[in-house]
Amino acid sequence: MAEKVVTRIKGTAKEIHGEILAGKKPELKLPLRSLANVRYAVQKGYFELRGKRKLRALTVGTVKTFAQTLRMMALSKELVEQDDIATKREAYYVSKNWGDARFDEQDESDTVMDDVEALFGVNREQLGFIPEEKGGEVAGRLVVIDRNPDGSELRLDCTQFGSGAYSMPISVEHLKFETKAAFILAIETAGMFQRLVKHGYWQTANCILISMGGVPTRACRRFIRRLADEKKIPVYAFVDGDPYGYSNIYRTLKVGSGNAAHLNEFFCVPQARFLGVMPQDIIEYKLEEATHPLKDVDIKRAKDALKNDPFYQHHKPWQKAIEQMLQMGVRAEQQALAKHGLNYVIDEYLPRKLAHPERFLP
Amino acid sequence: MAEKVVTRIKGTAKEIHGEILAGKKPELKLPLRSLANVRYAVQKGYFELRGKRKLRALTVGTVKTFAQTLRMMALSKELVEQDDIATKREAYYVSKNWGDARFDEQDESDTVMDDVEALFGVNREQLGFIPEEKGGEVAGRLVVIDRNPDGSELRLDCTQFGSGAYSMPISVEHLKFETKAAFILAIETAGMFQRLVKHGYWQTANCILISMGGVPTRACRRFIRRLADEKKIPVYAFVDGDPYGYSNIYRTLKVGSGNAAHLNEFFCVPQARFLGVMPQDIIEYKLEEATHPLKDVDIKRAKDALKNDPFYQHHKPWQKAIEQMLQMGVRAEQQALAKHGLNYVIDEYLPRKLAHPERFLP
Repeated sequence: MAEKVVTRIKGTAKEIHGEILAGKKPELKLPLRSLANVRYAVQKGYFELRGKRKLRALTVGTVKTFAQTLRMMALSKELVEQDDIATKREAYYVSKNWGDARFDEQDESDTVMDDVEALFGVNREQLGFIPEEKGGEVAGRLVVIDRNPDGSELRLDCTQFGSGAYSMPISVEHLKFETKAAFILAIETAGMFQRLVKHGYWQTANCILISMGGVPTRACRRFIRRLADEKKIPVYAFVDGDPYGYSNIYRTLKVGSGNAAHLNEFFCVPQARFLGVMPQDIIEYKLEEATHPLKDVDIKRAKDALKNDPFYQHHKPWQKAIEQMLQMGVRAEQQALAKHGLNYVIDEYLPRKLAHPERFLP
Repeated sequence: MAEKVVTRIKGTAKEIHGEILAGKKPELKLPLRSLANVRYAVQKGYFELRGKRKLRALTVGTVKTFAQTLRMMALSKELVEQDDIATKREAYYVSKNWGDARFDEQDESDTVMDDVEALFGVNREQLGFIPEEKGGEVAGRLVVIDRNPDGSELRLDCTQFGSGAYSMPISVEHLKFETKAAFILAIETAGMFQRLVKHGYWQTANCILISMGGVPTRACRRFIRRLADEKKIPVYAFVDGDPYGYSNIYRTLKVGSGNAAHLNEFFCVPQARFLGVMPQDIIEYKLEEATHPLKDVDIKRAKDALKNDPFYQHHKPWQKAIEQMLQMGVRAEQQALAKHGLNYVIDEYLPRKLAHPERFLP
């Protein structure tokens, strides 16, 4: 993979070099990164870019951006060759030594980085650039295979972290996996994750527990995706029963985000299915007393999803669920199950749910 | 520890029971949790409660709160006896089964939990209650000793996590430690932590790396505190050179927060010292080009610290540093060091700093 990236960067650089030597005006063809250039690829399961491209030719007006794009490519090549990493912030600071090609604001360097990412059709982690944010703890029946700084292999047995957990790195491209788990349970809150870890739920259910801690980070989505793809295991999402849980957390996990469509290919988990909490669960599990009325922002978010989100527009069962929630006028958090006792979720809710994964929403 | 808590809960309950049987009006003496009842204990290194207490007697007006307080004590006893845990949110939901003593809002149950915490002079983790939030990754020369769900011992070698890390549990009271590290480096950003992990910096420097990810969570502060106390190793903070880094992140790590003075005893790290980034570093390490002008909010925060914060009022060198920052009018992030190359921080900055820990600010 690393070699491929370097080869492609060199290839593009060589083309430009050739054009300059031939006295031609060099240009870069960059995919247009905007919603107007996006469609919902139902088969693949994510928003993807249509073919439109913008030209970045070398002119008096574009000379700075053009130089910055080449510099960013060179930095990426250096990172990949040296097996090093840089956060977006660090890349911005590195540019302070690029003379007139330096970035004045990080916004500018982020945009150029996104362009380079889209140009090579890879995610920025593959270019050596990593996000600032961490996120994603793992416990259960999984062995992660990583490397020591000296290159030697390292096996991380996620059954052996006690009350703690394995914290995945910011970039997960190099990890390999071994598992015989039946499924991955992706959990919204750190509190629920801690409960399931504390009671060794992964043992009972033969599964892998992953804490998303709210909207899953890129690293967390990529980790789940690679693991689920390579090991062919299902992914079940266990999040709050509210519009934020449905349309921000779950939808981002499953199909990615509209604003970063050139990335969704890598950062979505199309095989994810929704375990709960569903509006119907409030009735079936007698959670009425532990619900909260929908706030205005909840109602707005739910209506927006129905009206504007291609994902919900494509999936009838989701439309029904959201309409039911609007009709009931209440939301229920995953921790609301504690109303029946702290470990009701382990003894009752999850087993009853997991007996019928075919009922999980897409 | 667990036994002690249960014994004290039982003792208090027995007293109240006795008073009721004797036909007296039972009462609870709760420490007053407010800034008016706080002083800066310089010797101990944190804000602590003065002795003032409020009485919660059983009257017609207080019967609900009184009952809730006893119920919360009973829940705590149950948790500790069964070695279980409950988040604040879960405790709120559990109350939905307390009939008329149920809480209507989580605010109310949080307040009663804080009262119980202050009443017994322990932190809520010792009562079985855990926060929602996670936080705190560890890599380096440390073995954490935890227990499996079946009670057997588990050893977690934090040199063996590759590019990943050990994610500490939400409650860390039961952990034990083995280490020969020379110091703990508490790092503000996940990005910097990832860089130091990637390059095996803990090996070079014989240290323990801890990622705080912004303002450190309770678990993270408690973990560092227990580790530093038990193993008698120094703690160095490596955070951004800006007012937020100084007065929010570092100050919270070191002396705790003003609003939760009944907890600071457990959740502060008085032995912490400030490695950088200092305003003087901007000059010494030639970072001028990589700084940012102070924003209004930065200036306000810095002036507030000088004027109102007992910690800064007590430490002259900190006053000087903040005044220097205000005078220079700029701030510098820890990642600004990348201006001199991505690994300048490893090859130059940290070694030069660590050669003179006596220069670190208190």
